[in-house]
Amino acid sequence: MKTTKFELPEWTFEFHGHRCPFMPIGYRMGTLALSKLQVEKSLNHEMRVFSEMGIGHPQGCMQDGIMSATGATFGKGMIERFNYGIIAAIFWYPSKKDAVRISLKNEFQDKLASHEFFKYRKQGIEPTGIPENVRLDIINIVLNATDEELFNVSTLENFNYTPVKGSFNKAKCEVCGEYVFERYLRVKDGKKVCIPCSERTHEETVIHLPDITRG
Amino acid sequence: MKTTKFELPEWTFEFHGHRCPFMPIGYRMGTLALSKLQVEKSLNHEMRVFSEMGIGHPQGCMQDGIMSATGATFGKGMIERFNYGIIAAIFWYPSKKDAVRISLKNEFQDKLASHEFFKYRKQGIEPTGIPENVRLDIINIVLNATDEELFNVSTLENFNYTPVKGSFNKAKCEVCGEYVFERYLRVKDGKKVCIPCSERTHEETVIHLPDITRG
Repeated sequence: MKTTKFELPEWTFEFHGHRCPFMPIGYRMGTLALSKLQVEKSLNHEMRVFSEMGIGHPQGCMQDGIMSATGATFGKGMIERFNYGIIAAIFWYPSKKDAVRISLKNEFQDKLASHEFFKYRKQGIEPTGIPENVRLDIINIVLNATDEELFNVSTLENFNYTPVKGSFNKAKCEVCGEYVFERYLRVKDGKKVCIPCSERTHEETVIHLPDITRG
Repeated sequence: MKTTKFELPEWTFEFHGHRCPFMPIGYRMGTLALSKLQVEKSLNHEMRVFSEMGIGHPQGCMQDGIMSATGATFGKGMIERFNYGIIAAIFWYPSKKDAVRISLKNEFQDKLASHEFFKYRKQGIEPTGIPENVRLDIINIVLNATDEELFNVSTLENFNYTPVKGSFNKAKCEVCGEYVFERYLRVKDGKKVCIPCSERTHEETVIHLPDITRG
């Protein structure tokens, strides 16, 4: 029988900007991923997260919780968004043969959906405009739930991911003069230039797709 | 004459995972952007940041500082990466006619590049493996510099950006049963399915390009 309430550090709310239920759900998801993979928070560049969430829908806030718990941050290049619109993420760690996928259970999504918090959100009221007691109540529902009530967990066997090889090489764009990392230098009229100075940004956009195979 | 040292909250290092010079540079860049736009940290979904950084190069850590200072987080869908490999970002705020672009000066990049910190990094040593005094020294160089020593700031007049319209609509994938937000539902054999169950993920990847025009 569950007797403990999950606790998360106050700074995670400070980072996120507001109190909502989904940042804590993400923090719990990330914490569970560390436990399943038997690893610690990534202080440097270890773990990679492939978020299945997308844009223009609620609950993406979860990703801020995932970053906070795992250390797999956007700035460090450790989280990518797959744009599937699904409340789930895949967690990969170097030297681990299998990756872990964790999704938020439909049943828990249904449970939250009927909460007063979402009546406000669907009226377009931003989280900081929702009464404090309503927000604390829905956050407590998240913090008091068990991992089993919250999540489906599956193992992605022989998950093969190759992070890109990093490089410190850079050079100044020969048109605007700004430093550009080598991967992103282009050539125009014989000069090494940055992508905006190549004047081809409307014709070509660089997108990186993670190099993934599932065994 | 400069007499003050910039200070940033300890939780920003906790979030980021390690002490390095670029998270603080990003925090300062974000702080300067708030000041130039005359706005406060975005607690909800106000500001948008278009980072000109890319992957596979150092100094992306800056983006964690930008998110921490501005509240424009990845989880809240408020920061996009343009993949130009340039140490710069564009800051947009609703109702402000102009956006602000801030880049890290070449001169400051050169100043940092000769620091002992990068001798370790170029040997492949991760930040937490670098002696504490070396890291504190390079961070202090960042914190003691003036905004003018660090940054070039420019105004992007009549910067036009339209955030996507959000929706709470979702439905269960008729194959796997997981909830999917409507934008990402697809149709296969007459059924509404998630993108992975459409079995077209190898043929089609959903990428969102920010809808931007510069006047």
